Amino acid sequence: MITTEQARSVIAAGEARAKKIGIAVNIAVLDAGTHLKAFSRMDGAVLGSVDIALGKARTAALFEITSEAVWDYCKPGAQAPGLQLSNGGLMTFAGGIPLTAPDGSVIGAVGVSGGAVSQDREIAEAAAQALGA
Amino acid sequence: MITTEQARSVIAAGEARAKKIGIAVNIAVLDAGTHLKAFSRMDGAVLGSVDIALGKARTAALFEITSEAVWDYCKPGAQAPGLQLSNGGLMTFAGGIPLTAPDGSVIGAVGVSGGAVSQDREIAEAAAQALGA
Amino acid sequence: MITTEQARSVIAAGEARAKKIGIAVNIAVLDAGTHLKAFSRMDGAVLGSVDIALGKARTAALFEITSEAVWDYCKPGAQAPGLQLSNGGLMTFAGGIPLTAPDGSVIGAVGVSGGAVSQDREIAEAAAQALGA
Amino acid sequence: MITTEQARSVIAAGEARAKKIGIAVNIAVLDAGTHLKAFSRMDGAVLGSVDIALGKARTAALFEITSEAVWDYCKPGAQAPGLQLSNGGLMTFAGGIPLTAPDGSVIGAVGVSGGAVSQDREIAEAAAQALGA
Repeated sequence: MITTEQARSVIAAGEARAKKIGIAVNIAVLDAGTHLKAFSRMDGAVLGSVDIALGKARTAALFEITSEAVWDYCKPGAQAPGLQLSNGGLMTFAGGIPLTAPDGSVIGAVGVSGGAVSQDREIAEAAAQALGA
Repeated sequence: MITTEQARSVIAAGEARAKKIGIAVNIAVLDAGTHLKAFSRMDGAVLGSVDIALGKARTAALFEITSEAVWDYCKPGAQAPGLQLSNGGLMTFAGGIPLTAPDGSVIGAVGVSGGAVSQDREIAEAAAQALGA
Repeated sequence: MITTEQARSVIAAGEARAKKIGIAVNIAVLDAGTHLKAFSRMDGAVLGSVDIALGKARTAALFEITSEAVWDYCKPGAQAPGLQLSNGGLMTFAGGIPLTAPDGSVIGAVGVSGGAVSQDREIAEAAAQALGA
Repeated sequence: MITTEQARSVIAAGEARAKKIGIAVNIAVLDAGTHLKAFSRMDGAVLGSVDIALGKARTAALFEITSEAVWDYCKPGAQAPGLQLSNGGLMTFAGGIPLTAPDGSVIGAVGVSGGAVSQDREIAEAAAQALGA
């Protein structure tokens, strides 16, 4: 069960990295049941990226893998075409990462959107590391 | 345009009041266009109250009045029966309050859910006051 | 089939009445198939009234009666409890009126929202009269 | 904050271009928060294009770029596969353009649909220019 304190440290770590890069992003933290725990939109992030941050976190929590790893299952030629249409629509590019407890169990997920995809991934990774290696 | 710093001060003021009362709530902050700006679920708040906090804030932002004031328009015998079915469903009980700039213009709304309705209202009022009288 | 010119004259007549009253409203004009034909939000109308104007017009077009007349079928004690939940949610208070051709056939509907219910009704009636008695 | 007068001049400029080309289109104008401000369907435009015009405008407002520029992020081989499934579904082909104030800030968006895509783009550009170069 992810705590408020943990969710805030995840967001703080992500925002610190975003500021270092010099961009504005949304950071969403969900619990393992995909319910919203904490969210922050940095000043200047475009409105369309709010839903994408939420969607990346939801995708990562639903499948317990990164959002872009889900794409490997449904990309052209892969085994599960249309998988991205399940669950009301998945976000299948980088920026969503499961959050794990020290024992390795998934306790939630973080989703980042607002920058280039590689920037969103970097920020999400920095955010996820706030819970420990 | 509500800022991240303002949204955080709203949530912090609300959570301080909730802790004083001794309950766990969700606090949602939206901008004037009803887009999510910040959110926090305190440890122990029931899952069903996440959507209610968001809905109260959305209702207050859409109509620029408190969420319970919307009920006065659609309660039994009032002039607008079924108003609560508009906009994808409104939350028409206390806990949603418009947030205003010093010049009186609406810059967003806060929504609180998790306690008794009177507690949610008290917490939302404390949260809204973080932006000044 | 309602024309663009007719839809504009409906909106113009409604806005003229709204200005005379001194309020800001949304005016939606749909065709007989409930598809959007024209829409205008006057400066200052609250955001929540956009969907209500559309909903009143849709309700009037779907049943070929005023939006408040639908309420007579589903109000407490009436024969069709819950009717207002059909069609994705109806708006069952005044401000929606069918638009008719000179031969009496329904060619669409107008919906008004933004003022008090009695004001919305008055503006919708003025708007509908733009198509002739 | 886009005004009614501005929204009307956008629609008038777009319709003038559509008439010059000889086609019938829908033109939607949204505010910066993606809320409907004004809409017009020219006589003869197919019903399916109503939602497309609204969707193109919404896409442009959400990301503050043209609707077709969003496609560059999610087309086959690009970095954000499935981006078009976010925000309830985006319209990622030409005809949606952000509307800007003289200071460069985004105050809304226009969406055009009903003709060939290249025609929709030409009409949307003519419409957007109504607010100045």
